[in-house]
Amino acid sequence: MRQIKLYDTTLRDGAQGEGVVFSVEDKLRVTEKLDDIGIHYIEGGWPGSNPKDIEYFKKVRLLNLKFAKVSAFSSTKKAKKSVQEDSNIQALLKSEVSVVTIFGKTWDLHVHDVLKISLEENLELVHQTISYLKGKVSEVIFDAEHFFDGFKSNPAYAIKVLETAVDANAGWIVLCDTNGGVLPSELKKILETVKSKIKTNVGIHTHNDSDMAVANTIVAVEEGVNMVQGTINGYGERCGNANLCSIIPNIQFKLKIDCVPAEKLKKLTWISRYVSEIANQSPRENMPYVGNSAFAHKAGIHVDAVKKNPKAYEHIVPEIVGNHRRILISELSGASNVVYKALEYNIDLHKDTPQTREILAKLKEMEHAGYKYEGADASFELIIRKALKSHKKFFDLEGFRVIVENRNNKLISEATIKIKVQGVFEHTAAEGDGPVNALDNALRKALEGFYPVLKSVRLTDFKVRVLDAKIGTAAKVRVIIESTDGENTWGTVGVSENIIEASWEALVDSIEFRLLKEKELKH
Amino acid sequence: MRQIKLYDTTLRDGAQGEGVVFSVEDKLRVTEKLDDIGIHYIEGGWPGSNPKDIEYFKKVRLLNLKFAKVSAFSSTKKAKKSVQEDSNIQALLKSEVSVVTIFGKTWDLHVHDVLKISLEENLELVHQTISYLKGKVSEVIFDAEHFFDGFKSNPAYAIKVLETAVDANAGWIVLCDTNGGVLPSELKKILETVKSKIKTNVGIHTHNDSDMAVANTIVAVEEGVNMVQGTINGYGERCGNANLCSIIPNIQFKLKIDCVPAEKLKKLTWISRYVSEIANQSPRENMPYVGNSAFAHKAGIHVDAVKKNPKAYEHIVPEIVGNHRRILISELSGASNVVYKALEYNIDLHKDTPQTREILAKLKEMEHAGYKYEGADASFELIIRKALKSHKKFFDLEGFRVIVENRNNKLISEATIKIKVQGVFEHTAAEGDGPVNALDNALRKALEGFYPVLKSVRLTDFKVRVLDAKIGTAAKVRVIIESTDGENTWGTVGVSENIIEASWEALVDSIEFRLLKEKELKH
Repeated sequence: MRQIKLYDTTLRDGAQGEGVVFSVEDKLRVTEKLDDIGIHYIEGGWPGSNPKDIEYFKKVRLLNLKFAKVSAFSSTKKAKKSVQEDSNIQALLKSEVSVVTIFGKTWDLHVHDVLKISLEENLELVHQTISYLKGKVSEVIFDAEHFFDGFKSNPAYAIKVLETAVDANAGWIVLCDTNGGVLPSELKKILETVKSKIKTNVGIHTHNDSDMAVANTIVAVEEGVNMVQGTINGYGERCGNANLCSIIPNIQFKLKIDCVPAEKLKKLTWISRYVSEIANQSPRENMPYVGNSAFAHKAGIHVDAVKKNPKAYEHIVPEIVGNHRRILISELSGASNVVYKALEYNIDLHKDTPQTREILAKLKEMEHAGYKYEGADASFELIIRKALKSHKKFFDLEGFRVIVENRNNKLISEATIKIKVQGVFEHTAAEGDGPVNALDNALRKALEGFYPVLKSVRLTDFKVRVLDAKIGTAAKVRVIIESTDGENTWGTVGVSENIIEASWEALVDSIEFRLLKEKELKH
Repeated sequence: MRQIKLYDTTLRDGAQGEGVVFSVEDKLRVTEKLDDIGIHYIEGGWPGSNPKDIEYFKKVRLLNLKFAKVSAFSSTKKAKKSVQEDSNIQALLKSEVSVVTIFGKTWDLHVHDVLKISLEENLELVHQTISYLKGKVSEVIFDAEHFFDGFKSNPAYAIKVLETAVDANAGWIVLCDTNGGVLPSELKKILETVKSKIKTNVGIHTHNDSDMAVANTIVAVEEGVNMVQGTINGYGERCGNANLCSIIPNIQFKLKIDCVPAEKLKKLTWISRYVSEIANQSPRENMPYVGNSAFAHKAGIHVDAVKKNPKAYEHIVPEIVGNHRRILISELSGASNVVYKALEYNIDLHKDTPQTREILAKLKEMEHAGYKYEGADASFELIIRKALKSHKKFFDLEGFRVIVENRNNKLISEATIKIKVQGVFEHTAAEGDGPVNALDNALRKALEGFYPVLKSVRLTDFKVRVLDAKIGTAAKVRVIIESTDGENTWGTVGVSENIIEASWEALVDSIEFRLLKEKELKH
């Protein structure tokens, strides 16, 4: 049965998107997630171009990947150097991957104006690079850069480059619309010619400069291409690469060709948001399939119709990509949402009880103030518990003070805190790497004597987003923290004009949540 | 000569996008701008659905539109009412427009499950509504809702609905992919059937749920459709409508069919940003053609090639849509990025000078440490100036202290600072809305006496990103701030494990940058 190979280049081409930066640690984490959802090839970076990517390839070998092959990327060798002398090519080998991806020129304009060599010399670069590497690694993928522009300018030469790569034993020939300028109808015609000449595996790599990246990819698959290259959320240079979050479900549900197992597809929305969080890009709300608004209904007639039959205004069932329907505006539908969410925490609410109304009102008030509960389930559960009176206070704050001092170029952060626990005052202090860390240390120091379980709790993630940024440092900030006790992980949120106060709110929620669970376990 | 009619529904379908809200005043201003860029039809609203739209149609008559026709939108009449009794239909007439747009059901599922009437009755609604209106206004446009889903479910019936609308004298038959689920290849095939049956003017209206809205529109134009419906920036229900900012240049430059005069096209980027401002939506940076990143080059090899020949990595000349090229600085940069960027600051560097290498090395070192210069041009310029020895220190820090105190549930943030300026010690303090705001206030208070120009400087944006988040509050944070003096705007960056110190670095860069400019102006 036909299967499409997914080739992800979020970590290389995606990182060329404006504002997208991944640390080595980020790249490793994303690699694991891509492996987990069933991506076949993960292009990890260009080891010849920067030290970060070299470090990535060293460390990625230590990951226990189950499915994906990791690929290292490079241009063809330089014209004046042998493959043995070429630092890019040697860096590929040092990265110790089994798959390498080489991009080469197919557009005569690039050969003349950018490489400034003859067309014949360029063919030699392609052949020498691929055949050398083919002897050293198990698979060489050839990315035919600017293939469509090349074909439009000089079809015979563009095809000649592909044939040269095939002759040098490339395992895949990937046709790239590097400038993103081609339309689906042109692409289809050009592919018909390619199919008649090239019998090796063919792939497609498109960019979105004409808003055609996904459409061009799908047309190419319909024309018989068996590898698609793209990025999560369509990150990439200029207008971005083809968005795998659109391509994967289009292939699976619309073309009915398998590319990932159905249970993996349910993680699509999750991985989209995970990668946007790691890349620190606000998720695009109206992204097809995975956006927060992708199944959000606002117009009254749409809401009414969807209640009669969801197919009326939904092209797929949102849950198959891990997304869900949202009903905007309507208060009644809002209550259903609360009921639905509470169920996720095993809390049985009914649509028409006063508590449900109270929770809904509170939720709307908090969201209006800038709170967001998607990454802060524990804070949301606390809201439900407060409404249901199943919440309990574990301490009272008398006051805290956080000091950050720079004296003689030495920086110290110190927090003092006074709380009342079980009728006893506790007044203590701690240092930290920064003001929030100091406050966290002081609070836990004050509480651990009373609640030893907190000794196992630590923060694992800390996110800050500035809201209404246009008013500078007086803007509101939203802090989301993730905590763990080694076994479970939970998220909490705080919002304030003051980052220390926002962090404090999130810290307190985190601790209350853990203690509440402890109390329930004991009963 | 063939000309494509542009039909904008930003003010109606666009307003169904999550978060998009227009006041009547907003709608009137957008109408004028759409008229100005040469849109043929502007769908202003649905007067039967809300009082705001009734007011809009009253006021839009007073605008002095030069080119566009304004259209009022409604469903077909209700099944149980005559056209004379139907409030939606009568509201259309009260709006006193010369063009009305009527949407009707073509999908049997909708007729059965949503309208809950017979297929025959639905044909009557379509016929009665259009023929009644055709006697009262000069043009009736029929939007065939869910036409493609309808055709896939019951082709004979879907075509029958179109024929009924033609028979009732509709001026345009617009085929809608309301759920956004159709692929270009399917759409093309269905259009071939439609063309053989329908001889009236045909239009296309698509949604983006499969990431195909623009591609489907372009395929339809290639198949002979002469009206395209869409919205500015692709705003609309769920994943949005077809984006006119992509469609217009694709039709004009790729299909080479006229839709607006060339000098109007130069306003495309401007209108995209204008509408996003009015709709209070952050502009999508990587939008094709009009996005801020659409012609932004980050990878070193791209920058190098674009300098040799812009066509190397740009599918069109950015200026023809009113956009422009930008060169980004990052760890992916080569010496070319640095040289090109320096030129923007009127600093003449050469690719092979030791200073250029030194700057590039510094840049890579800083980025490895977590700094990022894409949104922090001013910090980058300071690095260049330091390497060129054209930088100067304006003050020395002796120390600062920031205190955030919560006492009896009252929160105060205070900063003290001691600096040496021009040989004089200045020791002062200030409060703020949070620790960074307090520090900013104190620093500027200390400096303003010596450098009065700083009185006009204020922060306009403040972004925080946590790096290597997996180690909790001890993680590094990157702060990017944007400052303005009312005339120019600049960005600076700071990185530290301590958010206060990271903010301090960015604040100091911001102030140094402004003072350096002042000094140069005086020379």
